[in-house]
Amino acid sequence: MRDDEELGRITLAQVAKKAGVSISTVSKVLNGRQDVAPPTRIKVERLLETHAYRRTARSSREAPLIEIVFHELDSMWALELIRGVENVAKANQASVVLTESGTRHSPSPDWIEGVLQRRPIGVVLVFSALPQSVKQQLQARSIPFVIIDPAGDPEPDVPSVGSANWTGGLAATRHLIELGHRRIGIITGPEDMLCSLARLDGYRSAMGMAGLATGPELVRFGDFHVEGGFDRATEMLALPRPQRPTAIFAGSDLQALGVLEAARVNGLRVPHDLSVVGYDDVQVARWSSPALTTVHQPLRQMAEEAAQMLLRLRTEEPSATRLELATSLVVRNSTAPPPESAPEAPKATKATKATPQTVPAARTED
Amino acid sequence: MRDDEELGRITLAQVAKKAGVSISTVSKVLNGRQDVAPPTRIKVERLLETHAYRRTARSSREAPLIEIVFHELDSMWALELIRGVENVAKANQASVVLTESGTRHSPSPDWIEGVLQRRPIGVVLVFSALPQSVKQQLQARSIPFVIIDPAGDPEPDVPSVGSANWTGGLAATRHLIELGHRRIGIITGPEDMLCSLARLDGYRSAMGMAGLATGPELVRFGDFHVEGGFDRATEMLALPRPQRPTAIFAGSDLQALGVLEAARVNGLRVPHDLSVVGYDDVQVARWSSPALTTVHQPLRQMAEEAAQMLLRLRTEEPSATRLELATSLVVRNSTAPPPESAPEAPKATKATKATPQTVPAARTED
Repeated sequence: MRDDEELGRITLAQVAKKAGVSISTVSKVLNGRQDVAPPTRIKVERLLETHAYRRTARSSREAPLIEIVFHELDSMWALELIRGVENVAKANQASVVLTESGTRHSPSPDWIEGVLQRRPIGVVLVFSALPQSVKQQLQARSIPFVIIDPAGDPEPDVPSVGSANWTGGLAATRHLIELGHRRIGIITGPEDMLCSLARLDGYRSAMGMAGLATGPELVRFGDFHVEGGFDRATEMLALPRPQRPTAIFAGSDLQALGVLEAARVNGLRVPHDLSVVGYDDVQVARWSSPALTTVHQPLRQMAEEAAQMLLRLRTEEPSATRLELATSLVVRNSTAPPPESAPEAPKATKATKATPQTVPAARTED
Repeated sequence: MRDDEELGRITLAQVAKKAGVSISTVSKVLNGRQDVAPPTRIKVERLLETHAYRRTARSSREAPLIEIVFHELDSMWALELIRGVENVAKANQASVVLTESGTRHSPSPDWIEGVLQRRPIGVVLVFSALPQSVKQQLQARSIPFVIIDPAGDPEPDVPSVGSANWTGGLAATRHLIELGHRRIGIITGPEDMLCSLARLDGYRSAMGMAGLATGPELVRFGDFHVEGGFDRATEMLALPRPQRPTAIFAGSDLQALGVLEAARVNGLRVPHDLSVVGYDDVQVARWSSPALTTVHQPLRQMAEEAAQMLLRLRTEEPSATRLELATSLVVRNSTAPPPESAPEAPKATKATKATPQTVPAARTED
């Protein structure tokens, strides 16, 4: 705790003196009040930051809050992450404050005002980037923050938690190769997200190591939503027999649900006619029919780690640590050997159990 | 605002005088501090309650919080409800505090200590019951609270928001009857939840009005989870042909997903061989394959209404209002006429060909 010896010593009075303003002005800045002239505000913030002022006495008396900020709650990720933070909060008699704000990349400016007033123990940000101004304002009030970054695009100078996307893409593709698939398509996420590219590169490496072709017709970029999965899969399933993939790595569980629907619409049975692998392992992966083989991204554990980091940051100096948790393949019922790899007759009877009448339909669709 | 004229007048000093204690003791009670003797605490609480003390000046200066309390976040309901409260909070520059606490029926005692310290604008409780002690402690600090009660088991003396379960059960069943189904099974929720019974009664009334039999083999109680839906459906689908239902009203979307899987395992196509209706219309209902016909329970809107009630309760006196929002049938792709009602062959192609192009395109808009 050498750091703490030096830090937390400066008082509001000293800051006020150095800044040449009144104590109440300093506390206004600390409390995120709007009635302070910007130049004064900045000067005070700088002093607070350089002297690493810490509001120690206060927070202990108040009801501790851990804040989690999303750009959108409309995602299966959200619930898993909230539950992770809630687990840690509960264990520390704290509560979770939830804010939906800003874009995929950073919270909106007005958010910062609110958080300065709420004074949480710390902030978990589910964003891939964070504006310098936001960092400074949080640092000036010594409000610790950690970025949860499933998108895999961390800020170098900020503590963040992510997971191993490349390895996940590799594992998903290898599983399909080991089942005997040779024509394997991929629908990864948006082109501007690093996790999409990492998963795609994992797929490419696995295919390359197996000496399998990955033509452009087998590689698509989606939107991480059901619609994208449905549309891209519909395109790939429209390819003529030899080019058509016998398996699709869907890049996310939601996209995998879209692939399942595209298969159903085309009269293809999963996994008999088409194998599908998801990514994330959110609840719906277990609930879908058939249950999805998917890459488990430990979202809840990532959130727990992030919240634990915050608690440590109350006493330790922030160090720009990047924690990357392992992903793992979860094999369920949406993957099987490709149709070609076994004589049709036994396969068919085996699958007649599954959906007999779709077989002629499947043929008419071909 | 006649109420407000009379209320909010009493000061801490007056309460202290009446209680024969110091002002600091009164504020300790207000702040949920533990270092107050229980008798004193109760005496002060009574005075605060009878004189409807209101902490007006304070809350305006603080960062406003709206608290939502769940017994478990592990539910598709949770995300929808959180989003509803978040919408209202955002519009009012407030933040949402999220707590997971207690049982299905009430939050745990330690929760109350925390909420008294956090001093939210108000509390949305997702519980069917609330202990008298909790009500009194919240009322004493004039922290407004509203119960969101999708379970349909409201406290008579507490403002609550629910939805029309009986009507929902009726609409789901009538839809299947209109499609030509005669053997219609139901998997409703747990026997000890009023919403389960209300939906079952809606089903019974619809069947009765159509002069259709509802033998015990067609009526099952589930758990509102996928597993319950799968198990109960597997039982019903094992019935010999004449008794076997051609349609199942699944009582919840999660149970409906279980029914879809049971159908798949039994080689039955939905909706061609078996029609399935869900309940709730949570996200997964749109994502499942086929997309679920379901009863829309306006969870997000229910949460919005509850949060709006809280904001009104800041200025109005609480009146034990029960707000019941309408449910509505959303027709998607999991329901169709029963197999018997048309020759087999054309049906088969229709089920695989027509379903995709026409039905989703046309009806997902609903």
